[in-house]
Amino acid sequence: MDIYTRLNSLNITLPEPYPPFGVYLSVKQSGNLLFTSGILPVSDGKQLYTGKIGGELTVEQGQEAAKVCVLNALSKIHAHTKNLNSVKSIVKMLAFVASAPGFNKQGLVMNAGSQLLIDIFDSPAGEHVRTAIGVNEIPHNAPVEIEMIVEV
Amino acid sequence: MDIYTRLNSLNITLPEPYPPFGVYLSVKQSGNLLFTSGILPVSDGKQLYTGKIGGELTVEQGQEAAKVCVLNALSKIHAHTKNLNSVKSIVKMLAFVASAPGFNKQGLVMNAGSQLLIDIFDSPAGEHVRTAIGVNEIPHNAPVEIEMIVEV
Amino acid sequence: MDIYTRLNSLNITLPEPYPPFGVYLSVKQSGNLLFTSGILPVSDGKQLYTGKIGGELTVEQGQEAAKVCVLNALSKIHAHTKNLNSVKSIVKMLAFVASAPGFNKQGLVMNAGSQLLIDIFDSPAGEHVRTAIGVNEIPHNAPVEIEMIVEV
Repeated sequence: MDIYTRLNSLNITLPEPYPPFGVYLSVKQSGNLLFTSGILPVSDGKQLYTGKIGGELTVEQGQEAAKVCVLNALSKIHAHTKNLNSVKSIVKMLAFVASAPGFNKQGLVMNAGSQLLIDIFDSPAGEHVRTAIGVNEIPHNAPVEIEMIVEV
Repeated sequence: MDIYTRLNSLNITLPEPYPPFGVYLSVKQSGNLLFTSGILPVSDGKQLYTGKIGGELTVEQGQEAAKVCVLNALSKIHAHTKNLNSVKSIVKMLAFVASAPGFNKQGLVMNAGSQLLIDIFDSPAGEHVRTAIGVNEIPHNAPVEIEMIVEV
Repeated sequence: MDIYTRLNSLNITLPEPYPPFGVYLSVKQSGNLLFTSGILPVSDGKQLYTGKIGGELTVEQGQEAAKVCVLNALSKIHAHTKNLNSVKSIVKMLAFVASAPGFNKQGLVMNAGSQLLIDIFDSPAGEHVRTAIGVNEIPHNAPVEIEMIVEV
């Protein structure tokens, strides 16, 4: 199915891609692989949440942030490719979760983002490998940061 | 030499691949590259150790965990390829080490895993680049998590 | 422009590549992609700084370390390729910044390294995607560690 039709049927509107916060590109292509920069849960020009999951923030808030990161990634890939239907495979996600001491459910947080990708692509193209890891600090005090490798 | 013969000669039995703990694949292929998910030191269905190296856990326990991660990676690559002899090159390992404050021997921990790969492949195919990094928390309170890129 | 001429015009002398600190390669090639290991701010055989940014170290010291990492990466890529002019694209940088609690300017630290790459290549080849992330500990208590993917 056409990805944009699928997004509509899920009541998802892709956000405008937010501009890079520093001296880097949002997406760079090498051969048929697209690499994204680290993507933050920016929504309407503002960070959705700040803080550590397992501390100021709950798993549910982290999951919401993970989903916003995924939509931002797709919006940046859309801006690069002009057509998300050219995505053959979401290959890989590397996900960093700002974690309060003793918080070890990074996988549960990121499942929300992975599931959203799978729901949107609705085919093996959306199934990906993933590494989720806890870190003590993320730029702009974001709770989650993801990068992706995508095949076109 | 055949990899399975080599494993036998090293008295290594590859474990059964443990199933993913979340909404992701263990291995995904793009072109002739295999990407693995983050792999934990699961042994016989249980986490081998939990905790931070330099805290509850010693360097030696971390090295043991690193070796288990490497064998789990190979078992998942075996499950994907059906034949480890199709591996042309272990390209890259990214290794996260759950680190107590002030612990900076992540490289020493991961050398055990890297050496095991080199011993198993017994050729330049097993030599790889590696990034080892300390983090404050890893899913399931594992001491080590690795991901690999492999050329087939 | 020839990269070595450009380095001269910027008064930059590439350092000798420092040897790996463990059981891994500095650079490995797969197809037309070069992958580097994690690279530390080693200068004249010694770590430039140790400690956490936002703690013992300032942003400016972190930026200096980031630039040293970038030059070390280029020196290792030079050693591998024998000719930096064969680099078609700096694709990706993954940067870890040892961060004191509450330090969230990892991007500002790494901008110095990214800008240096852009200045040296002086063309779209030097523009790259980047993930910058805070971690609690880096091997050898380094303030910064980077890895790169480069297309030749």
